[in-house]
Amino acid sequence: KIDGGRLWDALMEMAKIGPGVAGGNNRQTLTDADAEGRALFRGWCEDAGMTLGVDAMGTMFATRPGEDPDALPVYVGSHLDTQPTGGKYDGVLGVLGALEAVRSMNDLGIRTKHPIVVTNWTNEEGARFAPAMMASGVFAGAIDLEHAYGRTDLDGKRFGDELERIGWKGDEPVGAREMHAYFELHIEQGPILEAEEKDIGVVTHCQGLWWLEFTLTGKEAHTGSTPMEMRVNAGLAMARILEAVQTVAMSEQPAAVGGVGQMKFSPNSRNVLPGTVIFTVDIRTSDQAKLDRMRAAIEAEASKICAALGVTCAVEAVGHFDPVTFAPELVERVRRAADRLGYTHRNIVSGAGHDACWAAKVAPATMVMCPCVDGLSHNEAEEITPEWAEKGANVLFHAVLETAEI
Amino acid sequence: KIDGGRLWDALMEMAKIGPGVAGGNNRQTLTDADAEGRALFRGWCEDAGMTLGVDAMGTMFATRPGEDPDALPVYVGSHLDTQPTGGKYDGVLGVLGALEAVRSMNDLGIRTKHPIVVTNWTNEEGARFAPAMMASGVFAGAIDLEHAYGRTDLDGKRFGDELERIGWKGDEPVGAREMHAYFELHIEQGPILEAEEKDIGVVTHCQGLWWLEFTLTGKEAHTGSTPMEMRVNAGLAMARILEAVQTVAMSEQPAAVGGVGQMKFSPNSRNVLPGTVIFTVDIRTSDQAKLDRMRAAIEAEASKICAALGVTCAVEAVGHFDPVTFAPELVERVRRAADRLGYTHRNIVSGAGHDACWAAKVAPATMVMCPCVDGLSHNEAEEITPEWAEKGANVLFHAVLETAEI
Ligand SMILES: NC(=O)NCCC(=O)O
Ligand SMILES: NC(=O)NCCC(=O)O
Repeated sequence: KIDGGRLWDALMEMAKIGPGVAGGNNRQTLTDADAEGRALFRGWCEDAGMTLGVDAMGTMFATRPGEDPDALPVYVGSHLDTQPTGGKYDGVLGVLGALEAVRSMNDLGIRTKHPIVVTNWTNEEGARFAPAMMASGVFAGAIDLEHAYGRTDLDGKRFGDELERIGWKGDEPVGAREMHAYFELHIEQGPILEAEEKDIGVVTHCQGLWWLEFTLTGKEAHTGSTPMEMRVNAGLAMARILEAVQTVAMSEQPAAVGGVGQMKFSPNSRNVLPGTVIFTVDIRTSDQAKLDRMRAAIEAEASKICAALGVTCAVEAVGHFDPVTFAPELVERVRRAADRLGYTHRNIVSGAGHDACWAAKVAPATMVMCPCVDGLSHNEAEEITPEWAEKGANVLFHAVLETAEI
Repeated sequence: KIDGGRLWDALMEMAKIGPGVAGGNNRQTLTDADAEGRALFRGWCEDAGMTLGVDAMGTMFATRPGEDPDALPVYVGSHLDTQPTGGKYDGVLGVLGALEAVRSMNDLGIRTKHPIVVTNWTNEEGARFAPAMMASGVFAGAIDLEHAYGRTDLDGKRFGDELERIGWKGDEPVGAREMHAYFELHIEQGPILEAEEKDIGVVTHCQGLWWLEFTLTGKEAHTGSTPMEMRVNAGLAMARILEAVQTVAMSEQPAAVGGVGQMKFSPNSRNVLPGTVIFTVDIRTSDQAKLDRMRAAIEAEASKICAALGVTCAVEAVGHFDPVTFAPELVERVRRAADRLGYTHRNIVSGAGHDACWAAKVAPATMVMCPCVDGLSHNEAEEITPEWAEKGANVLFHAVLETAEI
């Protein structure tokens, strides 16, 4: 078994870096706080006897050698970056849980045939630079490296420039590594495990997703002196599209979601009807046909709404992945590990996207989930118990050991 | 008659300060560009033999003495500040038209019994600091000076601090001056005069207004892993309230408007449902009962919408004035001046708010309007012709002369 106390201490230590405003974290990707978090993690990896490689997307790969020089490594990881108002566990548990597994192997003198590579993927959150799971997406060949470098944040700063600025642009080509398998421990970020009092989520699938960015162009005009019938009101079109997103998601229940997280009015002045409204739509479901139907329905509705108001509508797909089915033999291994440890468990579909989704394109992959309080995530109030973390890390430890072969 | 060429040159000279991105201006109140525009205007006033006073709100009063030491001055002015993406004429025409009137009196050797005070009111636009017509509102006793000083922009900067920073906090107490009358020349900012090919709008009334600021509090949550039925979606509530604003305004046609200009999502991340949405509503009409009914209807609808979604709704009224009736004897004087000059004219209700609306609380006041292309304002593409400007300024000149008594 792993050392749950040490794992918890590491989580609390990392949470000191990039503190939020309400008890959580703001350690967004490629900020100074991200650099600080990476440096702390590098020190821990080196202390555990691992050797660090960094690729051109800034992803950190810390290797514990295996016994067999020809055996491909087992990758275990997640991400250390957070939302602007994020929690202490989303991503971090997966990286530090992997580190704890290696620390425990060291303590217990366990050697494995396959090397173990503890991994911290860059920009999983996609909050600052869309899309999410960016570095793992480039790794899997789904996102072009130059496209990733060119993505900008709300201040117009480029991903590539910021990666250089914080000093974490490595020299390894992205995606050059081959994986024997990939494992990721993560908090559920949903309400099911806690509600059903299960210790462990055995993750069989992950929802597919579309991230759409709408740019609506109306006509800037005076809110007081412009008669209603002369308005070309991009704000009103936005409101109607937002309602359409809700309607489409509700009409595809159960197990489909749709929402809007980012919004920008220009010129954003009280007495000016916005000339431009830019906002993002996030739709997800685990059924491929349903996912595509939702996107088509929203775009068709948006076209109608905008045409009726004379507003111009442009839609860019800034993020996408298809629904994922994780490797059955690894899923089974996670289930057996939970059984062996005497933990309650159930199958679960991941509502959030994860680096494991892209890793699954290039290797057998799966995840281990633990409950989180009220299913709350992407909120500084995100919370788990030390016991949940420990149980999750124990299952990860066992499944990884079985895969890496003692 | 005034010198239309000189007036146009002054307009073009001022437009060089704080250029916009699309041919208009960004000379928002209390910015460095505002300070530069004020300095240029001060120089012109001094060259025309006027003496400058500045009050504690930064309003500039340039006095041309009268013949009678006991006669109260006739105030003539508007504002030099602009929207972030504003036009070259909104406000500026009124200040420089007043200056041109004085320049022409000088050229023609005209002396008046009453002094003339060319006035540049601070923060008419209210784009950076709400409410609009702030300095004239303080002057009229409708807004408290300390309240005005404490207003903040989107970066959290205080009005009072910014006024000191640009060096235009004067020592005159605000509202100490007594006015014989107040005149303001302004572009219509609406479509009527141009459509009906009228040279001059004789402004009989101004719409009343409510500026409401809504703060909706939902629950920050993951857009992917939070089931639809668990969401407390402040963004969806916003969309529904925006639709309600539209519905209420449409149900009060004709001559009522409602719209939303400013919007802020927090944390404004693609995969986070907003925990907070702050937005502003602007409703106007010239009928007092209708105005109050609209406000009540929107607030009642908002309460219902938020209650249904579990969202908390707080509404603050950040700006207000009642519908205004301008002084009939001055209105008549404007009409006669237009007639005398052989210009076509019609009565008009101002759709926008103006400093004249507050001045009307403390003195007989009215306005002169000229057409603007497509009724477009609060847009960098705002446009007028030199002929329209000249005719407007001529009417202003005549009405002011009659009031100031030659
Ligand atoms: N796990 C997680 O929250 N990832 C962020 C990407 C997303 O699912 O939106
Ligand atoms: N004239 C003008 O556009 N004033 C700004 C205040 C307002 O009416 O919103």
